[in-house]
Amino acid sequence: MTRLSEKDIIGIFSSALGIADLDDVAEIPLGKKALAFKCDMLVGMTDVPEQMSPRQAARKSVVACASDLAAKGAKPLAAMVSLGLPRSITRGYVEELARGFQIASQEFGVKIVGGDTNEASDLVIDCSMIGLADRIPPRSGAGPGDIVVMSGLFGYPASGLAILMGSARATGQFRKQAVDSVLEPRPRQDFAVLAPLFSSSIDSSDGLATSLYEIAAQSRVDIHVDYEKVKAAGVDEFAQANGLDPQKLVFYGGEEYEIVATIPKKSLPKARALAKKAGIVLHEVGAVKKGTGRVFAGKSLLENRGYQHLA
Amino acid sequence: MTRLSEKDIIGIFSSALGIADLDDVAEIPLGKKALAFKCDMLVGMTDVPEQMSPRQAARKSVVACASDLAAKGAKPLAAMVSLGLPRSITRGYVEELARGFQIASQEFGVKIVGGDTNEASDLVIDCSMIGLADRIPPRSGAGPGDIVVMSGLFGYPASGLAILMGSARATGQFRKQAVDSVLEPRPRQDFAVLAPLFSSSIDSSDGLATSLYEIAAQSRVDIHVDYEKVKAAGVDEFAQANGLDPQKLVFYGGEEYEIVATIPKKSLPKARALAKKAGIVLHEVGAVKKGTGRVFAGKSLLENRGYQHLA
Repeated sequence: MTRLSEKDIIGIFSSALGIADLDDVAEIPLGKKALAFKCDMLVGMTDVPEQMSPRQAARKSVVACASDLAAKGAKPLAAMVSLGLPRSITRGYVEELARGFQIASQEFGVKIVGGDTNEASDLVIDCSMIGLADRIPPRSGAGPGDIVVMSGLFGYPASGLAILMGSARATGQFRKQAVDSVLEPRPRQDFAVLAPLFSSSIDSSDGLATSLYEIAAQSRVDIHVDYEKVKAAGVDEFAQANGLDPQKLVFYGGEEYEIVATIPKKSLPKARALAKKAGIVLHEVGAVKKGTGRVFAGKSLLENRGYQHLA
Repeated sequence: MTRLSEKDIIGIFSSALGIADLDDVAEIPLGKKALAFKCDMLVGMTDVPEQMSPRQAARKSVVACASDLAAKGAKPLAAMVSLGLPRSITRGYVEELARGFQIASQEFGVKIVGGDTNEASDLVIDCSMIGLADRIPPRSGAGPGDIVVMSGLFGYPASGLAILMGSARATGQFRKQAVDSVLEPRPRQDFAVLAPLFSSSIDSSDGLATSLYEIAAQSRVDIHVDYEKVKAAGVDEFAQANGLDPQKLVFYGGEEYEIVATIPKKSLPKARALAKKAGIVLHEVGAVKKGTGRVFAGKSLLENRGYQHLA
C-alpha cells in the first residue's frame, strides 16, 4: 500500500466536494462585494518548533489566514479560533496562547469573535477568517506579457528552520532575520492595496515554486523568474557556508507568507505609483509567457514541489 | 497545581479577547443583515466512539455548526473544513471522510467551499460556517413571562453513548434511536423558521441544564422547566433497567443538538401557527420568571454543569 501524500488527500476532498482546490481561499458572492473565507490549522508536532513560545504559536496560527486574505485584497472582518489542548496544559501556557491571539488581533486588524475548546493529544489551533473585497483575483488570470511581482524575497524561513533544528549555523543579522521569519512571520497586509491590479495572485506559504506552478497551471501559461531577484539577502552565503543548496531554500522551503501576483504590463506604472505612495517595495521578478504551465528560473525548469504535510 | 477545566480555559480566552463567550455563535453586522460565524472541532480521541464510521465522523463534524446557525435563525452561506490526519491514514478512510462531507453538504444545504489538510497524531476536523440572518437572537433576551420552547426532547445521546460504551443495554426502537442520536445526530434546521420570534436562543449540544443556565444567567432571570415535558420517550425505563439516573441522562448528557429558546407569551399563537405550517413540533416545556439566573426542574434546582472537555 502506498502512503497518501497531502496532494492525494486534497485531490480526494476537492473532487468529492466539487471545488478546484480545497486549500485555496474561497470566494462567496455577497451583493456587489465578495466574501473571502479561509481556514488554516496549526498542529504542534509539525508546525511548532521547540523554540517557538505558545504566544508565538498562537500568533502564527492567525498569520496564514491574514496572508491569504491579503493576497486576495480582502479586508479582514472577523476570525475564529478552534483549540485542541492536551489535558496536562497549564494556566500559564493557556494565558500565553491567549496573549498571542490578542497580539495577532491587534497586529493584523481582525477581531477574534469566537472559537471552540477541546481536548486533544497535541496542541491544535485552527483559525478561520472572513474578509470583504470588491473583487477577488483568481489564480487563473495570468496572461502572457504580465509581470510577476512579489511582496518580499525568499529563503529566510527554510534557513531559519535549519538553524533552529541545529542542522545549520549562522550569526548576526542573517541569523536573526532567518529565525524571526520562522517564529514571528509577517503577513504582507500592506501589499493588498495593489490587489485591484492583480490578474492573478496567491499567498506563497506553500513555497515559491509550487505557488508559481499553481498560477502557471491554472492560467495555462509559463512563468519565468530571475533567481537573483527573488532570493533574500545572505541566503547564497548561508547556504555555501553550511553545504546547502540555496535554490532549495529559496524555491522549495515555504512559509514565506509573501504575496506572489501577476500584473498586466499596462498596469505597472499605476502599481509602482501605488506602492510608492503606500511605502511598500514592489519586487518585479519575472514575466508571464505563452506556455503550458511550466515555471523557469533563468533557463532551469523548476520542480513542482513545496512543503507538503504527510510527505 | 489544579488542572484547568474547559470553563477555566474559555474564561481565559474570552477575557483576553474581550468577548462574552468564546464558544458562542458570533454575530457580525453586515449592512442591514447579520453574518453568523461559528466553528466546532471534532477530535478522534474524545468525540468519535469506536462504532462511528469515518463517514459518520465527517458528517457529524458539520452538525454542530449547522445546529448553532439554526438556533440563531441564520441560513448557511458556506463552510470550511480543516483536517488533521494521521500519517498512517488509508485512501479508503479519506474517501469515506470525503463522502461524509458530501452527505453533510447536501443534507444541511451548505456548500463546503474549502479547507486545510495537515498531519496530526489523531483525527481532527474543524468545521467553520458562516450564515446570514435578518436578526440574531441573543442569549440575554429572555424576559419574565416568556415561554421556554424546544425543538425536541432530551436524553437519547447520553443513553446511546452508554450503550455504545457497553455500560448499559437496550433493545428495539429505543436502542436504535439512542444509538442513532450519537452516530447520526440531526440538527434542527427546520426550527430556524421560528427564530424571528425568539427572545433568546441557544443550541443545546453542551447539555440541557447548562444551556438553560446560559440563558438564565445572561438574561438575569430564573427558568422553570417540567421534567415530564423535556424527557425523551423511554429514557425513564432505560435508566431504571440499567441502574442509571434518568435526570442525569436528560439534563447533563449533552450532544442533543436541539434548539432551546424563549418566546414572549404574546408571540406564542404565531409560533404555534408557524410550527404547524412548517410541520414541526413546538415543545412548550416551561416558563421564564423573575430571578437571579437559576434553573429549576419542578421544584428541584438543577446543577449548572454539562459535558465539558478536559473535565
